[in-house]
Amino acid sequence: MSSAHAIIITIGDELLIGQTIDTNSAWLAQQLNSFGVDVAKRVAVGDDASAITTALDDALTTAKIVIMTGGLGPTSDDITKPLLCNYFGGKLVTNEAVLTHVKELFARRNRPILPVNLKQAEVPDNCTVLFNKMGTAPGMWFQHGDQVVIALPGVPFEMKAIMEQEGIPALKRLFSGHHIVHRTLFTAGEGESFIAQKLTDFEAQLPAHIGLAYLPDSGMVRLRLTGRGKHQKALEDEVAALQETMAKTLADIVIAKEDIALEAILGRALLHKQKTMGVAESCTGGTIGHYMTMVPGSSAYFKGGIVSYANELKINLLGVPAATIADNGAVSEPTVIAMVQGAINVLQVDYAVAVSGVLGPDGATDRVPVGLVWIAVGDKDTVKAREFRFHYDRERNKEMAAKTAMLFLLKFVNSRRS
Amino acid sequence: MSSAHAIIITIGDELLIGQTIDTNSAWLAQQLNSFGVDVAKRVAVGDDASAITTALDDALTTAKIVIMTGGLGPTSDDITKPLLCNYFGGKLVTNEAVLTHVKELFARRNRPILPVNLKQAEVPDNCTVLFNKMGTAPGMWFQHGDQVVIALPGVPFEMKAIMEQEGIPALKRLFSGHHIVHRTLFTAGEGESFIAQKLTDFEAQLPAHIGLAYLPDSGMVRLRLTGRGKHQKALEDEVAALQETMAKTLADIVIAKEDIALEAILGRALLHKQKTMGVAESCTGGTIGHYMTMVPGSSAYFKGGIVSYANELKINLLGVPAATIADNGAVSEPTVIAMVQGAINVLQVDYAVAVSGVLGPDGATDRVPVGLVWIAVGDKDTVKAREFRFHYDRERNKEMAAKTAMLFLLKFVNSRRS
Repeated sequence: MSSAHAIIITIGDELLIGQTIDTNSAWLAQQLNSFGVDVAKRVAVGDDASAITTALDDALTTAKIVIMTGGLGPTSDDITKPLLCNYFGGKLVTNEAVLTHVKELFARRNRPILPVNLKQAEVPDNCTVLFNKMGTAPGMWFQHGDQVVIALPGVPFEMKAIMEQEGIPALKRLFSGHHIVHRTLFTAGEGESFIAQKLTDFEAQLPAHIGLAYLPDSGMVRLRLTGRGKHQKALEDEVAALQETMAKTLADIVIAKEDIALEAILGRALLHKQKTMGVAESCTGGTIGHYMTMVPGSSAYFKGGIVSYANELKINLLGVPAATIADNGAVSEPTVIAMVQGAINVLQVDYAVAVSGVLGPDGATDRVPVGLVWIAVGDKDTVKAREFRFHYDRERNKEMAAKTAMLFLLKFVNSRRS
Repeated sequence: MSSAHAIIITIGDELLIGQTIDTNSAWLAQQLNSFGVDVAKRVAVGDDASAITTALDDALTTAKIVIMTGGLGPTSDDITKPLLCNYFGGKLVTNEAVLTHVKELFARRNRPILPVNLKQAEVPDNCTVLFNKMGTAPGMWFQHGDQVVIALPGVPFEMKAIMEQEGIPALKRLFSGHHIVHRTLFTAGEGESFIAQKLTDFEAQLPAHIGLAYLPDSGMVRLRLTGRGKHQKALEDEVAALQETMAKTLADIVIAKEDIALEAILGRALLHKQKTMGVAESCTGGTIGHYMTMVPGSSAYFKGGIVSYANELKINLLGVPAATIADNGAVSEPTVIAMVQGAINVLQVDYAVAVSGVLGPDGATDRVPVGLVWIAVGDKDTVKAREFRFHYDRERNKEMAAKTAMLFLLKFVNSRRS
């Protein structure tokens, strides 16, 4: 743990009843990490003065930096501003710059300004105002000896704008002591424990200032190396060399040397070969297309697809012979092979992937149990098909089927010469 | 705050460097709330024994229930199990039921079992094992006087399965002193503040033992009434009557009187009319199909769709005239109308929905800014189209576009006589 570590306190009842998922903390942690500040703890408390005070007391016993988000809005359940003002012994005064900004914001949106909105321009006289050009609630920077407490609004894009423009540059000047370097290896096809066994010697030899974490997700495992040190360049080289060693040990299962989504890896492979792809989705119902189009610019390689949930669409749109389905079933090797061939033909793409299965909880037949999924990938010359079996609930089986299909296609694309 | 409040502790370095967004806490909070347990605080700490111990010490000073997630995997960065065993003064022993399960799991997946996997069957002898049928790491229930500490694996679907099957029923038996009744009204088309204004009198007259929460999501707002009391039947009647009053006040915007996903409401409306639907998705890339097929049994009304991400597929597969796109652009009223007509024709469905837009961050043109989306819905007689504008990032714009499209279709289906 570095000497200058941070604690993040998020405030709001909505965080304690499961209504809001906290994305601010993850973003703040990434930013702080980037200039060498570790986050030692994250705490979420409700809109409750004593809970907030206790959390702040606790944090200030160890942390050099305390970042608080939420509780700065105009409504009555937002109590952080007067509390902090009081905590550090100040009083609320109107800040003219903030007042002008709030008035302008309401004028621009053509809305009447209410007294509660004008109150947002009141700030403690013992803090530095962090200007919020995206909204009405300003951020506040309290200096407490050599400790810093920053209070920010909870709305993510307001919080981010304030930190990017003012908070982070100021924190960097004060606290940028050592560096933190992350490197991630993305693997697919083997489980966490298999990889751990392969890396036993590697892990035993890791120096104390470099750690390795396993991050499993849907049949893939990300391996993250984290190094800490005084000299950025030397540290980067050291971590990069270790990543390379690890990549060699795991050569068969590495699919990327960075922290990136599977759909982006597949997209990059297609871009690199200047090829296009399409989908023929039955049981996944559009999930593969949904993932593929998460990537900005995916239109360069993803052309589209046929969601042939009903068998007649497999026949009418993809040209799967009716006899193939009648003889083998919709969930079968011949059907998914015909779906891929049909998709390449109809969508006029270089590669296609097809999925047909039973995701559950209903829909099993004598021949096809719940969780059985056939996947095929191919180009105009070659089609490969495989049977998979997933053992989870419908939602998870769907996600697994879609990701397994993308991974299968990635391997196929990488295996082709051109 | 009820007398039996809970604290949630999430464990893992990945939570402190911003690599993982914690969704477990929100789910756990919702579950605990449902039977009357409030969450007082959420804390996230790293894979660090002293931080975990401190967090647990703190939590046990006030909370009746402490739920810990993460840190139970087979690899060396997972340290929670031995720590808890030690904390409560037990020792690790092999649990035969878990051992059998782990062996079966590996056999079924056709993978060799490793010593680290066998270690997962070691559990503290002072805890009750919460069986994990979805994975290898069991949950653990420690009884500490009248306090309960539950440790769960961090993988969301494993954690949920364990809690649903064992943890929550057991907690309910112990801590559900009074009854809690929830009733939800699902509205669409108006914002939170508009609804709040309409419900001012209603809220003012709510008795103290019944609360109302606003749960906004993608242009829809769920209104959840929560009643607490000793007599279940009387409480249920009271909350049901209040829901009815609220439904009358908001008649124009109510789309369901229960807490149910939009895709299930749409599915039910189609089933009721014995009609089918299909999709023609451009910018959403399959997201609507992905949502629609989340519902078990959706094949009764969802036949499939065309993902026409590339313009040539709009022309070749949906029969959109090339001139329509050339003259008006792919993101335009005439294009989405032609897409719906094409989808009804090609997919042979009763209703279709079409979406075309620019989700960002790139792809804007002189005519079409980022966030502009055209949506059309219709049947063979009538097609309606509307322009929408979303102001978020790509992922959120995609979700908003898909949900808005489903809502638009739901209203259309409900408006048709047959």
